[in-house]
Amino acid sequence: MNQTIDLLKNHRSIRKFTSEKISDEQLTTIIESAESAATSNFIQAYSVIRVTKPENRKQLAAFAGGQVWIEQCPVFLVFCADLKRAQLACAFENKEMDSGYTEQFLVATVDVTLAAQNAMIAAESMGLGGVYIGGLRNQPDNVAKLLKLPEHVYPIFGMCLGVPDETPEQKPRMPAKMILKDDYYSEGDDDLSQYNEICSEYYKNRSSGSRDETWTHQIANMVSVPARPHMKGFLKQQGFDVK
Amino acid sequence: MNQTIDLLKNHRSIRKFTSEKISDEQLTTIIESAESAATSNFIQAYSVIRVTKPENRKQLAAFAGGQVWIEQCPVFLVFCADLKRAQLACAFENKEMDSGYTEQFLVATVDVTLAAQNAMIAAESMGLGGVYIGGLRNQPDNVAKLLKLPEHVYPIFGMCLGVPDETPEQKPRMPAKMILKDDYYSEGDDDLSQYNEICSEYYKNRSSGSRDETWTHQIANMVSVPARPHMKGFLKQQGFDVK
Repeated sequence: MNQTIDLLKNHRSIRKFTSEKISDEQLTTIIESAESAATSNFIQAYSVIRVTKPENRKQLAAFAGGQVWIEQCPVFLVFCADLKRAQLACAFENKEMDSGYTEQFLVATVDVTLAAQNAMIAAESMGLGGVYIGGLRNQPDNVAKLLKLPEHVYPIFGMCLGVPDETPEQKPRMPAKMILKDDYYSEGDDDLSQYNEICSEYYKNRSSGSRDETWTHQIANMVSVPARPHMKGFLKQQGFDVK
Repeated sequence: MNQTIDLLKNHRSIRKFTSEKISDEQLTTIIESAESAATSNFIQAYSVIRVTKPENRKQLAAFAGGQVWIEQCPVFLVFCADLKRAQLACAFENKEMDSGYTEQFLVATVDVTLAAQNAMIAAESMGLGGVYIGGLRNQPDNVAKLLKLPEHVYPIFGMCLGVPDETPEQKPRMPAKMILKDDYYSEGDDDLSQYNEICSEYYKNRSSGSRDETWTHQIANMVSVPARPHMKGFLKQQGFDVK
């Protein structure tokens, strides 16, 4: 269709990188591209921590459950939802922030995610690749302490970036007609059996037949067990999502 | 730098559109591009409702506080965080979803936002433009009823798309050095006074001098008052963010 759409459709998570560095100029372009995304009422509710210290990378890799690519990637960023700056704006104006609303949690979460996706696309357009690290939410409290995050800031995910040293296959997404619905939500459009077959084919090909996995099996295993039950308390401690 | 980065950096919210239509083929490409974004553990926790009925568009415009572009744009999409499909996957596997975790709310919110930003970029790469409509969260319960959203689905924002019939100025984002921090969070790097001057210049130029607004003033006004306090109850009603 066009170069940008080809790029979007070509996305895959990259966890192996060459030793080639990312320049400060490239990183600035990535951050400026991130900031060009839409932001709710101009609040720009995010900060990005570039973790350079090897010992801190090592700790983060452990917090995320042994993801060694956090140690090995040329650039590791931690994207944070940030309402601390909004609080500073209040102080600047002699006002007090009325904080803790779920809506503010939502706004900051959306803001940082829009920015992060722009960062990922900007990086990919330069020939770099990367992967989101949701695993930082395994031990968000330890991440927050390590990065000295104050109240009103929380780490949503990390991002490894570098020059790809692998080309993994792409997991087949749901057919667009399962995602896009006209006028009303309807479950009838979803043909899970058919999609399971597509996924099963993919896993068989990828693992030379050793893994047979379906979408429903994978997702049912994921959502039938407790999901990071510490998150509610952690977010509350950081001043998010309490009212 | 390159075409894609130019595109990202050229983003502006578009609220005025020509009468030119968006083809079904274009929309499918937009949705497929959206789906190419990263997704947490492959869950693809989103659905997109294309609202075609004029009377429903009119109601949504009213719910959002009189945003007439919702009625006028060639395509209006409502992006929904969707864990209903995960529940169906559980049913398919004879399991029960352990739902309501804040982490699941976060995962679905991030998933849908990553996808939406890809949709916006894909649209822009085709010469289209658009705007996010967070205002749907003014009356999320009415939006959910109108679109017949079941439990485990919530509308996060809308998106107007079409061929731009305006070229608004871009609001100046924070300098990258305010967003990007090395190793630790620090407030000291933030020079709010300097950024206020940049914003003030922008507003003076845009409104021919009639509006003098700073970032701190605008944001302090936003976050010093209650923020959609109904959201917590609404999300709970939809089965999100309760534990």
